[in-house]
Amino acid sequence: MARIMRLGRVELKVMDLESSVDYYTNIIGLEVTGRDRDSVYLKAWDEYDHHSVILTKSNSAGLAHMAFKVETLVDLAYYEKKIEEFGCTTSRISKGARIGEGEAVHFILPTGHHCELYTEIELLGTAVGTLNPHPWPLGKKGIAPHRLDHCLLTGDDLKTVSRFFVEALNFRQSEKITTVDGEELLGSFLFTSNKAHDIAFVKGPDTKLHHAAFHVNSLHDVFNAADLLSMYEVPFDVTPTRHGITRGETIYFFDPSGNRNEAFASGYFAYADMPTITWTEDRIGQGIFYHRRELSESFMKALT
Amino acid sequence: MARIMRLGRVELKVMDLESSVDYYTNIIGLEVTGRDRDSVYLKAWDEYDHHSVILTKSNSAGLAHMAFKVETLVDLAYYEKKIEEFGCTTSRISKGARIGEGEAVHFILPTGHHCELYTEIELLGTAVGTLNPHPWPLGKKGIAPHRLDHCLLTGDDLKTVSRFFVEALNFRQSEKITTVDGEELLGSFLFTSNKAHDIAFVKGPDTKLHHAAFHVNSLHDVFNAADLLSMYEVPFDVTPTRHGITRGETIYFFDPSGNRNEAFASGYFAYADMPTITWTEDRIGQGIFYHRRELSESFMKALT
Amino acid sequence: MARIMRLGRVELKVMDLESSVDYYTNIIGLEVTGRDRDSVYLKAWDEYDHHSVILTKSNSAGLAHMAFKVETLVDLAYYEKKIEEFGCTTSRISKGARIGEGEAVHFILPTGHHCELYTEIELLGTAVGTLNPHPWPLGKKGIAPHRLDHCLLTGDDLKTVSRFFVEALNFRQSEKITTVDGEELLGSFLFTSNKAHDIAFVKGPDTKLHHAAFHVNSLHDVFNAADLLSMYEVPFDVTPTRHGITRGETIYFFDPSGNRNEAFASGYFAYADMPTITWTEDRIGQGIFYHRRELSESFMKALT
Amino acid sequence: MARIMRLGRVELKVMDLESSVDYYTNIIGLEVTGRDRDSVYLKAWDEYDHHSVILTKSNSAGLAHMAFKVETLVDLAYYEKKIEEFGCTTSRISKGARIGEGEAVHFILPTGHHCELYTEIELLGTAVGTLNPHPWPLGKKGIAPHRLDHCLLTGDDLKTVSRFFVEALNFRQSEKITTVDGEELLGSFLFTSNKAHDIAFVKGPDTKLHHAAFHVNSLHDVFNAADLLSMYEVPFDVTPTRHGITRGETIYFFDPSGNRNEAFASGYFAYADMPTITWTEDRIGQGIFYHRRELSESFMKALT
Repeated sequence: MARIMRLGRVELKVMDLESSVDYYTNIIGLEVTGRDRDSVYLKAWDEYDHHSVILTKSNSAGLAHMAFKVETLVDLAYYEKKIEEFGCTTSRISKGARIGEGEAVHFILPTGHHCELYTEIELLGTAVGTLNPHPWPLGKKGIAPHRLDHCLLTGDDLKTVSRFFVEALNFRQSEKITTVDGEELLGSFLFTSNKAHDIAFVKGPDTKLHHAAFHVNSLHDVFNAADLLSMYEVPFDVTPTRHGITRGETIYFFDPSGNRNEAFASGYFAYADMPTITWTEDRIGQGIFYHRRELSESFMKALT
Repeated sequence: MARIMRLGRVELKVMDLESSVDYYTNIIGLEVTGRDRDSVYLKAWDEYDHHSVILTKSNSAGLAHMAFKVETLVDLAYYEKKIEEFGCTTSRISKGARIGEGEAVHFILPTGHHCELYTEIELLGTAVGTLNPHPWPLGKKGIAPHRLDHCLLTGDDLKTVSRFFVEALNFRQSEKITTVDGEELLGSFLFTSNKAHDIAFVKGPDTKLHHAAFHVNSLHDVFNAADLLSMYEVPFDVTPTRHGITRGETIYFFDPSGNRNEAFASGYFAYADMPTITWTEDRIGQGIFYHRRELSESFMKALT
Repeated sequence: MARIMRLGRVELKVMDLESSVDYYTNIIGLEVTGRDRDSVYLKAWDEYDHHSVILTKSNSAGLAHMAFKVETLVDLAYYEKKIEEFGCTTSRISKGARIGEGEAVHFILPTGHHCELYTEIELLGTAVGTLNPHPWPLGKKGIAPHRLDHCLLTGDDLKTVSRFFVEALNFRQSEKITTVDGEELLGSFLFTSNKAHDIAFVKGPDTKLHHAAFHVNSLHDVFNAADLLSMYEVPFDVTPTRHGITRGETIYFFDPSGNRNEAFASGYFAYADMPTITWTEDRIGQGIFYHRRELSESFMKALT
Repeated sequence: MARIMRLGRVELKVMDLESSVDYYTNIIGLEVTGRDRDSVYLKAWDEYDHHSVILTKSNSAGLAHMAFKVETLVDLAYYEKKIEEFGCTTSRISKGARIGEGEAVHFILPTGHHCELYTEIELLGTAVGTLNPHPWPLGKKGIAPHRLDHCLLTGDDLKTVSRFFVEALNFRQSEKITTVDGEELLGSFLFTSNKAHDIAFVKGPDTKLHHAAFHVNSLHDVFNAADLLSMYEVPFDVTPTRHGITRGETIYFFDPSGNRNEAFASGYFAYADMPTITWTEDRIGQGIFYHRRELSESFMKALT
């Protein structure tokens, strides 16, 4: 059975929908592709599908749900069964419950996060097309990421949620953070594509979002994004640096509701046969922020 | 069944083994990991497996074989059966026929190239290890690519070889070049990982190698590689530019036997649900060399 | 007496004024700051002065004049006297002969090119201002160079024109190309600022322009410019590469009248005490195109 | 009279000479060019002169002296006279007082820092030579900056020291930081070359060094330097970011004695006719750290 393809969408709860749309379109540089009463649907210029981000009006910030895309309806049924076998309850969300989407399988992660699998979604195509395409579109706006990249969530029982992704969803673990004695799992980085992570967890309260990340092409683009954020006075959490974990080049910053975003570049190719890389708690600072080599209060505490 | 993971190794025929080893170690920057009577085995610093390149003494240059790595012995048997079903003859190559390798499944592509599938190979690990690793090793030499990336081969019947990779090996076609009327297939780019290509074919004589490519991290690294090649007076085929096809940043150059190498960076993430991008023959120049917008004689003619 | 500051402006002859304005504004990304019957005046976003480029309608392409800016009227008189002492005739061009300009000293170079010195020109300021400025302006268009950078001209007697710049204008020679025996001067690179060249000459017909160059910040910006030129189907002369001479990162391309432009980044800091670097004719290919290591017909022949 | 060329050398006081030599050679990547009882002399690979850094054993860290290079002995006498006229006492330091150096003019800045002017120093040449040179040398070590770039010093009376550099040494002020009412000068950035600063001052105790900076070529090189510093566990002050002031790309870190170093890239070209850019105290955070937009305690307090 095929591996799950990718993190296909995140639905973010936002408190002021219009200022959020302004931020995600003009500063992040996504395009609005749909809108209903309480939600706005957006895609990045290099994505084919109808949307990868849904902004939904809410009383608090956070992750309403995230969803992974599978290749076929057969895969959908296969993973639905594996999720049930793992012990999670699934339900079907009807086609059309959200704009552009087909039927989805809903379940709740051991960390309490709402998660879906799906295969059907309306196809809009990238901004450069599929016939003799240019490498990027004229008229890009803002940070203009290629794609939604991954999420980092917090949870109490990282062993179980990691086991869930590995056993039920056929993910692999690229990296982990453990106590020095190796007894406790403090961080878990999991992939289904060839990226160093498609989903990750760090120890913390259940149901919370640490960040949603967008993929940009290079260090130069990360730095350019950082400049833009200062021009627009967007609050930073972390200015340009490298991750030890994943090796990515990165910045972190906050959307108008306080949801943390990341612009992420590089990172290695992860293959199913890679051994899991281990970071011990005494080196966690370097693992997260390779240059500063210590964690920051805000990075650990600000969750939505 | 799992998709094939990646192009795991190429065995290149070289005419002067020692000058080739000098080139692949000091200029490309690979590490020698094994050596027997007529062959030298090498790996890139960011690869885990025992080797990704084998240089074998021969009277002519070219590709002795390439091999794709699968995840398990079950996958190996599965793909062996599919290859047979497609109509290709397979044979088993015994464990130990080459240094560090387990058993492999051998077959000949419709284009006449020798190809293998395997899963077992000795694990050496990367130069940075798996415990609190640094992002890159001190003391890198030469171009120091992360990995072997892909091969481009030539062949007469691109439809059949593409169908072979799609039907027998579960690859997808990311891009293709066709005549303007769409009738004839002139180029075919195929992926099994999330890279824009793991193997590609252009119209030409059967059994020939166009190039073997190594992955570097960024445009800066491509340019740095180009500088190095000039310092070492390595002959260039193509100086730094972008591909329209795959969007990669690239240079091409020749090893001492005339085998073409590429240092390749960037390119988009390919997922199984992407539509195939089409390049028409009238735009092939831009597809291959996005800046120059025309093919060069040497790029089309120099094959090994 | 102060050294001359910089190449302050070039007046380019163009055959179709409107298509040229379209090119220099939308593709190069300059801003129109003035316009009279036959000329359009433009500046780059990071320049303070009223203009650095004048496009003037003409029956042929080429350089109408170039002008260097000095610090003061005292400097203007000082260099005027030195030019006369060298044996060149000077004349004064009245304030207001062109938009925004004060009085200038006109003279003809030993290579037949029209040249001026000036100090007075209207001040418009950069796009980011001088109070708590951002590093670059939102809404940049096209290649968006920081500044006009330098010109390369052709001429028959490079020794005399080099001596003119050194003796009359206090320039220094950073690099030179000579025949292998050192007898004949084939190229001469001269600076008055701390850039590797502010003006340069290669052997060729008198009065001709080889190219006018614009400064961009980095290799990434050179490459981005190259992508843009392909999107706009601007003809390239030279795709991204490095110069041996000056070490700059570069592309060459043509404006609608056939005047060659360059987008140039990096290069070393030149100081008055640097020895002149020598390139011998047998290595001229590498000196000009460090990667390709050979000259191209078009680069030598296309002059305006 | 010619403008002063550049900051030619800094003499840094270090407490453990051997660990300092190890740091400046293996991590910064300078080359030792001389050594006497208490001092070690070093140069960067792209510098022509005998040394740009002198490490001198001392009981405390800090700046022993810095020296600016002029073009000729006539210039030396000219600036000596202007310094005297400004009201500073000068003295001559004999040729040979330090290795490789000719006679120098010594004086003390209004901020108490020891400063010299000189023109004579032994010429060693760059690592790439002056005949058909490669753009950079094989075998570079560590950060491998091109050159010593600038110093930032602290002092109480910034108006007087700025006036000294402008009136006595013909520097220009590129940027300044003032209180919001414009009354008090809190920072002053001064140039004599075409770089955005050759010397700078911020409000603080007299005689202290804030940092000595080295020039690297690009953002990529700044980031690469940051990676190296983490590999060698060198303490950071500031991880990769942009300056608002000068627009440079930067990192700050500490040598084994606590002297702050900077690796600095980019920044605009400064010309003598540029207006002074003003940063007001309320925006000083953004002026210094364009992304973080606030000063850090360590950046303000750690002085040597």
